[in-house]
Amino acid sequence: MKIGFIGLGNMGAPMAHNLLKAGHAVNVFDLNTHAVQTLVEAGAKAAASPKAAASDVECVITMLPAAAHVHSVLTAEDGVLAGIPKGVVIVDSSTIDPASVKAFAALASQRGNTFVDAPVSGGTGGAAAGTLTFMVGGSASTYEQVKPVLSAMGKNIVHCGDTGTGQVAKICNNLVLGITMAGVAEAMSLGEALGIDVKVLGGIINTSTGRCWSSDTYNPMPGVIDGAPASRGYTGGFGTDLMLKDLGLATDAAKLARQPVYLGALAQQLYQTMSAKGAGRLDFSAVIKLYRDDRGQGSGNGDAR
Amino acid sequence: MKIGFIGLGNMGAPMAHNLLKAGHAVNVFDLNTHAVQTLVEAGAKAAASPKAAASDVECVITMLPAAAHVHSVLTAEDGVLAGIPKGVVIVDSSTIDPASVKAFAALASQRGNTFVDAPVSGGTGGAAAGTLTFMVGGSASTYEQVKPVLSAMGKNIVHCGDTGTGQVAKICNNLVLGITMAGVAEAMSLGEALGIDVKVLGGIINTSTGRCWSSDTYNPMPGVIDGAPASRGYTGGFGTDLMLKDLGLATDAAKLARQPVYLGALAQQLYQTMSAKGAGRLDFSAVIKLYRDDRGQGSGNGDAR
Amino acid sequence: MKIGFIGLGNMGAPMAHNLLKAGHAVNVFDLNTHAVQTLVEAGAKAAASPKAAASDVECVITMLPAAAHVHSVLTAEDGVLAGIPKGVVIVDSSTIDPASVKAFAALASQRGNTFVDAPVSGGTGGAAAGTLTFMVGGSASTYEQVKPVLSAMGKNIVHCGDTGTGQVAKICNNLVLGITMAGVAEAMSLGEALGIDVKVLGGIINTSTGRCWSSDTYNPMPGVIDGAPASRGYTGGFGTDLMLKDLGLATDAAKLARQPVYLGALAQQLYQTMSAKGAGRLDFSAVIKLYRDDRGQGSGNGDAR
Amino acid sequence: MKIGFIGLGNMGAPMAHNLLKAGHAVNVFDLNTHAVQTLVEAGAKAAASPKAAASDVECVITMLPAAAHVHSVLTAEDGVLAGIPKGVVIVDSSTIDPASVKAFAALASQRGNTFVDAPVSGGTGGAAAGTLTFMVGGSASTYEQVKPVLSAMGKNIVHCGDTGTGQVAKICNNLVLGITMAGVAEAMSLGEALGIDVKVLGGIINTSTGRCWSSDTYNPMPGVIDGAPASRGYTGGFGTDLMLKDLGLATDAAKLARQPVYLGALAQQLYQTMSAKGAGRLDFSAVIKLYRDDRGQGSGNGDAR
Repeated sequence: MKIGFIGLGNMGAPMAHNLLKAGHAVNVFDLNTHAVQTLVEAGAKAAASPKAAASDVECVITMLPAAAHVHSVLTAEDGVLAGIPKGVVIVDSSTIDPASVKAFAALASQRGNTFVDAPVSGGTGGAAAGTLTFMVGGSASTYEQVKPVLSAMGKNIVHCGDTGTGQVAKICNNLVLGITMAGVAEAMSLGEALGIDVKVLGGIINTSTGRCWSSDTYNPMPGVIDGAPASRGYTGGFGTDLMLKDLGLATDAAKLARQPVYLGALAQQLYQTMSAKGAGRLDFSAVIKLYRDDRGQGSGNGDAR
Repeated sequence: MKIGFIGLGNMGAPMAHNLLKAGHAVNVFDLNTHAVQTLVEAGAKAAASPKAAASDVECVITMLPAAAHVHSVLTAEDGVLAGIPKGVVIVDSSTIDPASVKAFAALASQRGNTFVDAPVSGGTGGAAAGTLTFMVGGSASTYEQVKPVLSAMGKNIVHCGDTGTGQVAKICNNLVLGITMAGVAEAMSLGEALGIDVKVLGGIINTSTGRCWSSDTYNPMPGVIDGAPASRGYTGGFGTDLMLKDLGLATDAAKLARQPVYLGALAQQLYQTMSAKGAGRLDFSAVIKLYRDDRGQGSGNGDAR
Repeated sequence: MKIGFIGLGNMGAPMAHNLLKAGHAVNVFDLNTHAVQTLVEAGAKAAASPKAAASDVECVITMLPAAAHVHSVLTAEDGVLAGIPKGVVIVDSSTIDPASVKAFAALASQRGNTFVDAPVSGGTGGAAAGTLTFMVGGSASTYEQVKPVLSAMGKNIVHCGDTGTGQVAKICNNLVLGITMAGVAEAMSLGEALGIDVKVLGGIINTSTGRCWSSDTYNPMPGVIDGAPASRGYTGGFGTDLMLKDLGLATDAAKLARQPVYLGALAQQLYQTMSAKGAGRLDFSAVIKLYRDDRGQGSGNGDAR
Repeated sequence: MKIGFIGLGNMGAPMAHNLLKAGHAVNVFDLNTHAVQTLVEAGAKAAASPKAAASDVECVITMLPAAAHVHSVLTAEDGVLAGIPKGVVIVDSSTIDPASVKAFAALASQRGNTFVDAPVSGGTGGAAAGTLTFMVGGSASTYEQVKPVLSAMGKNIVHCGDTGTGQVAKICNNLVLGITMAGVAEAMSLGEALGIDVKVLGGIINTSTGRCWSSDTYNPMPGVIDGAPASRGYTGGFGTDLMLKDLGLATDAAKLARQPVYLGALAQQLYQTMSAKGAGRLDFSAVIKLYRDDRGQGSGNGDAR
């Protein structure tokens, strides 16, 4: 199948590689010529513009940092909508706000194209291994149409509902994630301060009602889960600034919907504090530093006089 | 084995029953004579006071609402410490603050007795089924000594460390629980407001990084998990006022330890709001009502003019 | 002086009236023809478009709901920048984000014009009385240039610094306002629940360290300050949705600056809850309803069992 | 008049001095013999115990750190209630919880004495100058009875209502204070990050709706208010741990009353973080350090990728 792929960053590049491995013909475009070159060496065809990448293909995939980039890639003079054949589906795997998705879908349909939101989870590891989860927002028929293509890059291709619901699913999951991670950081730090062995505490939580991915798989306390970012200085993993971006999408969507998100808004401030301290590129589980660093300097007794 | 059991409430009564079933001889005491009578009919011996219940036994177990009750049951003129033989272990399964545990342990040791904190999780269902989890704080040898007795009432008997760490484990787990439940309530309500099918959203979260007990087992959104309190009007389950009590223990312990608990303190206010509205006896997952009730009356658009 | 005025809403209309009263010649434009007609009857000249309103004038003033409106009024084909003479100053009194101000200033300077941000405080009352405070962002010379014009509409014309700082001042003041109002609502409600006479409590706070405008001038508790919105069912005053808009500008600006705003983000959620309940048009001091309504239904004792 | 004074700390010592200056005869007691000696040199009579200090006097005043100290000073074998003549009023100027006040008042009345709560504001400066504000909880007649004595130590003697309302007034005022100070810290730090001159911003807030004692008298940003703790490294003033104690009293009282205190609970966590960092003895306006220290290390742009 002939595919146009736009956006060869940490996620997009390995995704495009997996399309090639699956035998698809891929036109690639990115402002980073080095990223393009690497894909060309793997068998892709370099395109001079998004417009060129979208010409004469059966599917277009975009993987970009934010809604503003998707907008320009679609609507620029040499953009996708200027070159794409009628009837071809545009799959956007960027994580953006649901309102922008609806606007882009409207633009695409004016041109006779279908715009599908299909954000991913699984990180750079899942992108390389081809084990990503795709959360797809679109009609049932469009979902069936794009499923085979996405299957070359991911393990779970989930149909979330109509256009925009893929982003809603991604945003809501990461809202829970951002809250539970900070909550586990809080509880593990409190337990440590109160004198329980953190590995014992982790074991109890993970077999009890506090059980969650942030505790049993990705515990932020060093020494509890082997191989978690906490056990390697919070390097790699899912960056604090990325979590901050997703919580920003969640609180903005909540603002538009007049929906309270008390814990989400507070968690956002905690990660924002980490980012302000220069830790934006550390894994988001490093938020536990807010609870543990410079600790034990307080009088540490119950008498606040 | 001869056991004194004090406190025959919703938890204590079934626990004492299981001790009888296991063949132990049990002296019971409670201010509620009806509760005592029921146990006597099951084979227990009624005691006239905590002192009487603790006389001539090999182990004393207390299951009471709060630290103040444990204090009076231990130290009153006709209290446990006035009647208990030297060397006998006192197992307190109440959920109380770690500081009180240390104080009670000191009082007990002055009398030549050992005080062990062994709070439980599993609720009234687990108490009846004998499948409770006991979180035991005490020396390794004391743990080995009480384990057989507790095994008659529970499935998992976990050694958490020294005296007080059982309460620390209970408090920290429930801190995570209170936060994750409110977080899931927030995210599920946001998703609903943004138009995704809540059952689909639940399914995605439960197979992704937002996965937690509060979502995959006890989801607060009606229609997501069959048999969860949300599917029966939030009746039964773990009461909001009980969660409020445990979050109060967590934030108080954090205050003494000079340890920040941002999300825990905010979650406590959410459950406190529910209690103020008269919902203190509903299951704690009813906190989702704060996000869903009276909703959709707002202008519901993004323009705040 | 000849002035083009665009945006004749609840604030803009009385401001334009005061310019006429001061003897200025005013071209007015608004999509609402009734609003235009009223101004014409007062001596203004109706313009067919922002472009027409900005032609042949010595100053252009815009008073619009949000940045998107300012953008289209400036850049549309029949917009201000298409008609304004070189060298003429554009004064925007809308409340918008500082980043948009900088972008609009850049567009204006490309056309040889100066764009000044001059948001106001004082509400519709101050607009009618001509007693508004203008927070002006621009060079010292531009400030001196626009001061006489703004003096016809306001009492205090404050120079805040370079372009954008007028909006920063407005946003930061309203951030404090949104927090203090909710804080006073919290404390007055707590005092009421604990049995102190609220008028006595208000008097103590207003002569002590809790003293603030939200307490001594605009107290949210009914019966404390005569003439405050609380004493007339929270009608009139500064709408909850307007406070929500300004807190949104504050938290968004904080996000861009990587600056934590813990209390501001939480206060935003409180007003968002009010808006979700359909109270978006009530005065923002109605936030006290979150603390007082449905209260006293709880068990109201300290024992959370 | 003959007065027994118990508790000669930073507040109590200057208060007792002012009683002597006013010509009263004062029996003093404190565990700190040096503090006692200083008062004796000023004309006081040293008492061997609270009981002795309360014997043969017309009024007893206590100024102690917390409710536990008041309890032991009243009820110990050599405590006040063991020696005080019937009918003599006990004035407690400590800041404690309203529930304890009611309990102490009941104990006193059993002995034929009246217990009045009269916490103060004004700090060590006001104590030395005799310009404290006393918030008195008790009957109108008791208020009239103690007013002359308190007038020797304070400028404003306010009758708040029945027993306990003095503490309610103190707690509610300091709840507003703790919130407004952190709110001003947040807004001033945001303004600084967005590039406005902080002295200009302070001036605008102080003449606008954000006006509050925390901004116009005690602004936490260095260089805004001469003589504020912010201008001398946050030394002196009202300690963070004291604010933490008062916010703890407020959130505990709210818990008992089932009253939500969202912003108060969050503000408490902010001061708790400062205390954990070892800043418990700095003035509470140092909370602004949480918003300014280590700042500007973040990527500082709006793009969270």
